[in-house]
Amino acid sequence: MNQPKPEDQPRYPFQSAPDIDFWPVTHQVLSVEIRAKTIAVLWDDNQKSCFHPLWLREQCPCPDCHHPVTRESIMDLLRLPEDLYAQDVSLDDAGYLIVTWSNDAHTSRYHPGWLRANSYDDWARKPTQRNRITWGEALDLTVFDGKKTLEDDGELYDWLSYLELHGLALVSNVPTSKGTVQELAERIGVIRSSNFGAVFDVMSKPEADSNAYLTIGLPLHMDLPTRECPPGLQFLHCLKNEAEGGESQFVDTFEVARALKVEAPEIYKIITTVDFPFRNRAVDSDYRWQGPLIQLDAAGNPVETRINTFLPTPILNMNNKELESVLKAKYHLFKMVNESRFLIQFKMQSGDMVVFDNRRVLHARSEFFPQTGERHLQGCYMDRDELYSCLRVLERHQRERGMAPAI
Amino acid sequence: MNQPKPEDQPRYPFQSAPDIDFWPVTHQVLSVEIRAKTIAVLWDDNQKSCFHPLWLREQCPCPDCHHPVTRESIMDLLRLPEDLYAQDVSLDDAGYLIVTWSNDAHTSRYHPGWLRANSYDDWARKPTQRNRITWGEALDLTVFDGKKTLEDDGELYDWLSYLELHGLALVSNVPTSKGTVQELAERIGVIRSSNFGAVFDVMSKPEADSNAYLTIGLPLHMDLPTRECPPGLQFLHCLKNEAEGGESQFVDTFEVARALKVEAPEIYKIITTVDFPFRNRAVDSDYRWQGPLIQLDAAGNPVETRINTFLPTPILNMNNKELESVLKAKYHLFKMVNESRFLIQFKMQSGDMVVFDNRRVLHARSEFFPQTGERHLQGCYMDRDELYSCLRVLERHQRERGMAPAI
Repeated sequence: MNQPKPEDQPRYPFQSAPDIDFWPVTHQVLSVEIRAKTIAVLWDDNQKSCFHPLWLREQCPCPDCHHPVTRESIMDLLRLPEDLYAQDVSLDDAGYLIVTWSNDAHTSRYHPGWLRANSYDDWARKPTQRNRITWGEALDLTVFDGKKTLEDDGELYDWLSYLELHGLALVSNVPTSKGTVQELAERIGVIRSSNFGAVFDVMSKPEADSNAYLTIGLPLHMDLPTRECPPGLQFLHCLKNEAEGGESQFVDTFEVARALKVEAPEIYKIITTVDFPFRNRAVDSDYRWQGPLIQLDAAGNPVETRINTFLPTPILNMNNKELESVLKAKYHLFKMVNESRFLIQFKMQSGDMVVFDNRRVLHARSEFFPQTGERHLQGCYMDRDELYSCLRVLERHQRERGMAPAI
Repeated sequence: MNQPKPEDQPRYPFQSAPDIDFWPVTHQVLSVEIRAKTIAVLWDDNQKSCFHPLWLREQCPCPDCHHPVTRESIMDLLRLPEDLYAQDVSLDDAGYLIVTWSNDAHTSRYHPGWLRANSYDDWARKPTQRNRITWGEALDLTVFDGKKTLEDDGELYDWLSYLELHGLALVSNVPTSKGTVQELAERIGVIRSSNFGAVFDVMSKPEADSNAYLTIGLPLHMDLPTRECPPGLQFLHCLKNEAEGGESQFVDTFEVARALKVEAPEIYKIITTVDFPFRNRAVDSDYRWQGPLIQLDAAGNPVETRINTFLPTPILNMNNKELESVLKAKYHLFKMVNESRFLIQFKMQSGDMVVFDNRRVLHARSEFFPQTGERHLQGCYMDRDELYSCLRVLERHQRERGMAPAI
């Protein structure tokens, strides 16, 4: 049996896999048989993969089943019989799996790299949880180089991996021309516009439609808790910070959650289960949403926070007895996120850019005094899944260049 | 006691309410007292509102507590004592509630229209569920006038109310110049860009990165099920539809869910609880998400669907026995959404625009034949909460003009 030939692995192996990805061949298929209706593959390291016939049929990569350009399915799934089975299975000379199906004698050919990576037997299961390191005041923030992240995919990958892990990353040496925040953000993905525009200028404005556009200090908060899905990433690029004051603070609420769960479990329960309302205040919009101050996933891990003290919104769905414990829990959390053990603080310099997960890391700034100098930041938002998508594409390119292991 | 004077109700009563809204005075406060720590208000229709002191303190509208321009809170919430109480309560000549607080003798003044609308005693609770009418093949789709919706807020409100109720609305007589879809969408809110751009052209393209840009029929589907929060609204504006074929179909999945729950409860359970993975196929992106095909809220009502047959993504987190029942349920649902009892169908004409809730209503198109004529649609996306925000702002304006009742 031969290793798949180079011509079977073009940059995007359109005819070899039902998607646009790169699947290095790490193991050869030794044999295949039909066992209890499944297509059972034996690998050269003695592992076995058993594929359900309907599951495997859906993934047929041939140009009649997956469009050769879009790589989206063009099969009529509704015509597949529920009791579909494999009529015949074999291996071809290139080590691909060949299956002929019961209903219409269609033949499918599966790439061994794709088959191995998409095995779902117990031994093959991969963790689905995103990587994460929670942090407090001791965090020694790594600083990335802005010019390199603009030019070099390796630096971009290191920066974004750090951002995914910590929910916060600092870049220095970013060109201080206006609009650079957009250029750097678009290295990752699509910018998310809001009622504050695509790119917003954080500076003192006379007709401020947000406290951010005043000179007052801003307590620890997230942006847009009023939205069903608040922005995941927030970019803040410092063009000038010559005024006295205007220091930045950041807190990882997932670390606060970890501590709260241990220190005050009854408060933690309220914070993670009771919906709190949020409503904005603007002439042309009226966004409202509600959710727990800390939202847990099915496994009990924090996935999202909604914390903002300057948009206190009337709670209208409980009586005063419930309200008493709910408000007590809210104030407990508000005080806790302000404890110094959770807080890191620094003053952004011209050319610095912070990016943080707005649904995890709170930000604050101290009052600044515009008569002592100019302070001007530019910012923008992006959904969280743009970050994950970008990391996956960079990892795909690394696999193509043999710089990362197979999935 | 007097009705609040006109000068107390400017267009946005900045000093009267802690937000930017209009609160018509429908009832007068007869008396106020402190009862069991709450501020207890007696209304002229004999209803009673009992406000929790911390709850009420947070909403103080004075310029020291809510910024006079942004209307966001500038109070330091952390300084409020947990056992805060009202030292003194009274009514002023204009019928406002006056409260002096225990900790710092701060005095707050509350507008009676705002107080009444934000009462949360049992009698005052309002439904929080959005309005909805599910539909099947019998739907007689109301057609709205595109030119009027661009110019007239009344027509805009009727159109959007219909859209909120049905998850689908048709507008005709929309100018067929390119970019009009953006103009009409921006009557509602902020457009959501995606990897397909801000405004996308649905037509046959040689380098198609989606089946939508081919001429083949598209089975019933939603767009971007691969995203954490898929686009809520999809706008499709027909510039030309002169080719043979290219008919549009729509299905309300919430109506399908209603029927499925009755007809096949065991399938319904799988469809509403098991996470299905979705993954896109593109050179520059790799979006992935997972969720139930029909997502229920805490009350068991459908809130969102993830249905797309041309992005079949390998399920990697269950064994073949579980997979057997999960795939069976998926195919059951796919066949059901295609039943004629749920389906409406029409051919869009030049100047038509459909808007639908992409997380509720599936869309499809039949194959078209470009050699018989041109077919060109322009589309864009928007998050659901832009629609809700716009409806609330329009309702606020109606209240200001006395054309809608107080909340």
